[in-house]
Amino acid sequence: MKTVSVLGSTGSIGCSTVDLLLQAPDQFRTGALVGGRNVTKLAEQARALGARRAVIADESLLPELERLLAGSGIEATGGRAAVIEAASLPVDWTMAAITGATGLEPTLAAVRNGRSVALANKEALVCAGDVMLRAVADAGATLLPVDSEHNAVFQSMADKQADEVEQIILTASGGPFRRASLEEMEKAPLEAALKHPTWTMGAKITIDSATMFNKGLELIEAARLFNVTEDRLGVVVHPQSVVHGMVQYTDGSIVAQLGSADMRIPIAHTLAWPARMPTNSPRLDLATLARLDFEAPDEVRFPALRLARESLRVGGAMPAILSGANEIAVEAFLKREIGFLDIARIVEDVMQSIGPQRADTLEEVLHWDGESRRVARQRTVARAA
Amino acid sequence: MKTVSVLGSTGSIGCSTVDLLLQAPDQFRTGALVGGRNVTKLAEQARALGARRAVIADESLLPELERLLAGSGIEATGGRAAVIEAASLPVDWTMAAITGATGLEPTLAAVRNGRSVALANKEALVCAGDVMLRAVADAGATLLPVDSEHNAVFQSMADKQADEVEQIILTASGGPFRRASLEEMEKAPLEAALKHPTWTMGAKITIDSATMFNKGLELIEAARLFNVTEDRLGVVVHPQSVVHGMVQYTDGSIVAQLGSADMRIPIAHTLAWPARMPTNSPRLDLATLARLDFEAPDEVRFPALRLARESLRVGGAMPAILSGANEIAVEAFLKREIGFLDIARIVEDVMQSIGPQRADTLEEVLHWDGESRRVARQRTVARAA
Repeated sequence: MKTVSVLGSTGSIGCSTVDLLLQAPDQFRTGALVGGRNVTKLAEQARALGARRAVIADESLLPELERLLAGSGIEATGGRAAVIEAASLPVDWTMAAITGATGLEPTLAAVRNGRSVALANKEALVCAGDVMLRAVADAGATLLPVDSEHNAVFQSMADKQADEVEQIILTASGGPFRRASLEEMEKAPLEAALKHPTWTMGAKITIDSATMFNKGLELIEAARLFNVTEDRLGVVVHPQSVVHGMVQYTDGSIVAQLGSADMRIPIAHTLAWPARMPTNSPRLDLATLARLDFEAPDEVRFPALRLARESLRVGGAMPAILSGANEIAVEAFLKREIGFLDIARIVEDVMQSIGPQRADTLEEVLHWDGESRRVARQRTVARAA
Repeated sequence: MKTVSVLGSTGSIGCSTVDLLLQAPDQFRTGALVGGRNVTKLAEQARALGARRAVIADESLLPELERLLAGSGIEATGGRAAVIEAASLPVDWTMAAITGATGLEPTLAAVRNGRSVALANKEALVCAGDVMLRAVADAGATLLPVDSEHNAVFQSMADKQADEVEQIILTASGGPFRRASLEEMEKAPLEAALKHPTWTMGAKITIDSATMFNKGLELIEAARLFNVTEDRLGVVVHPQSVVHGMVQYTDGSIVAQLGSADMRIPIAHTLAWPARMPTNSPRLDLATLARLDFEAPDEVRFPALRLARESLRVGGAMPAILSGANEIAVEAFLKREIGFLDIARIVEDVMQSIGPQRADTLEEVLHWDGESRRVARQRTVARAA
């Protein structure tokens, strides 16, 4: 019997996690479920799982949560402090799926437990990598990557021979502009950028996939998770998104993980790790798929990869600066204030104007994240004008 | 420092093994090298590695070996008993690469050491599976598969969760007749069957690849090595031979091993296992390969797969009977005595006429192997007439 908590249980990753927990009630006991604003869903999940505690981040919704859970014996709490307190509950496994900067503190709280933390919050490692990894080492926690690419790499390194790894290779779908010319990308309307070929995701991550900033952020995450320098990280475009990630060893072997586009597969892997649990996710049938394609990414049309590598070489706050500036630029693109290629231009501009900075504490990380957003907003306004 | 012996050191697998040992002289110390008839090569290898002992199976060549090793301090022995004695030398790792029935006893002797045995002799598990696995269990030995497909599966099961495996999938190149019609195969000349698309190998194994009996034998080997029933073994045709083998887990994940067509990669994996050692084998570049294809095998044109599965279901001596009959039929095809499709017809005929038999001891295995060959020869003569 494993005790588990889910931070961000009402989001997409959280709901898939709850699905899996419901399928194996004899294997998991739920400590805390933490949701943002969807109080109905949160109460429903807490009742279905018989959770010990349900926490709503938006404190104004606590009375509603209390009403929905009345008579269930499930404790209801609300607000920022309650979220962090719930994340600190000693459980065997925590899903850290509160996205963005908001998720940093709860994720750190879960890490300080010293147990297993399934990491679905990219920012934790991209922006606060040093802080997070120090906390992991201090607490003796285990980070289990949930992102399909990193989970694939983790599965491919099952025997953990980090010094025997020659290269870690992440696959990228190539996004909707894989075959587009620079001219087409310059004028691309929002609707074109929102058409992701394989995964159905939110608007921000779909645009990140079109610019390949998503892959850039994943490069940064991989460097942190697997403790490798950027020159040992490769990206290969693979439009079918069947192979999720690969590890090339010093003997010339490549070990890879493949799977259908269903996030329950990597989540189940982290949940059962180091064992496996059955899922009813669709199985791959390679003979039916018939064909897998691979091509080198084009860093001219997709400068995001080059910028991510540069941020890794600079280190310190630079990955956080890249990530913050990208968020603002994507917001502006989603509001049709700037063009598609302006996103990378703004990020590069912000990285250059802020320059190398330290990020040894969460405060420093948040400071440079804020600075990056502030400068990015200025540049966005300037471009929009 | 690992001590190693190479049984079959002058063959193709043996030479690749010696290559790898020569590249890492500070990591390996060579006990015995055993060769068949190539006394010059054997002496050269023994001198280069500073082996403790060199053994020539053909005893008539012992004086020549002694002459070639004079003054080297390397012990020279010869003959069948000397081979088995050398195989019994207590070393950490033994390469068992003496092919055919001749390799059975030396392989068993190495297994009885209780250390690691890199297995390149298919017959050991195909024909004498029960005997071999009992010896492995009794001695607490570790079998490390060298065949690229089984090594790939072994690498993909790095964390050994056998009960969490849903399916083991071997890839097959499809051979030269992947796209041929039954009519074309019926009349196929020897030259057409000898054209293997990706690997350069001996005549017997190239024909086995064209009939897919090679894949059938590998199915049997996989069932033994990984302790799974035939319904959990899949074959997918993959003409590029880049993905060598895959494991599908109960959670829906597939882990696979990929590599260039260089046997030094799986050999190095078994040699360094559980660590990894560097090789200068060509690296895969998926972006340059550009495309991997997969298709279901056709059991009508390639009855070998069906016959192999049947032999696994029957068990006992049936896999040995299949293997023995196939060897005789292939020999006859190589001598142009029978047609290409007659190979499988003869195997099926021999399997049916001998029927289920026990194979609990090496003697029983060898008996049924001999019976199978005898009946196969009769059938071959009948067909040739």
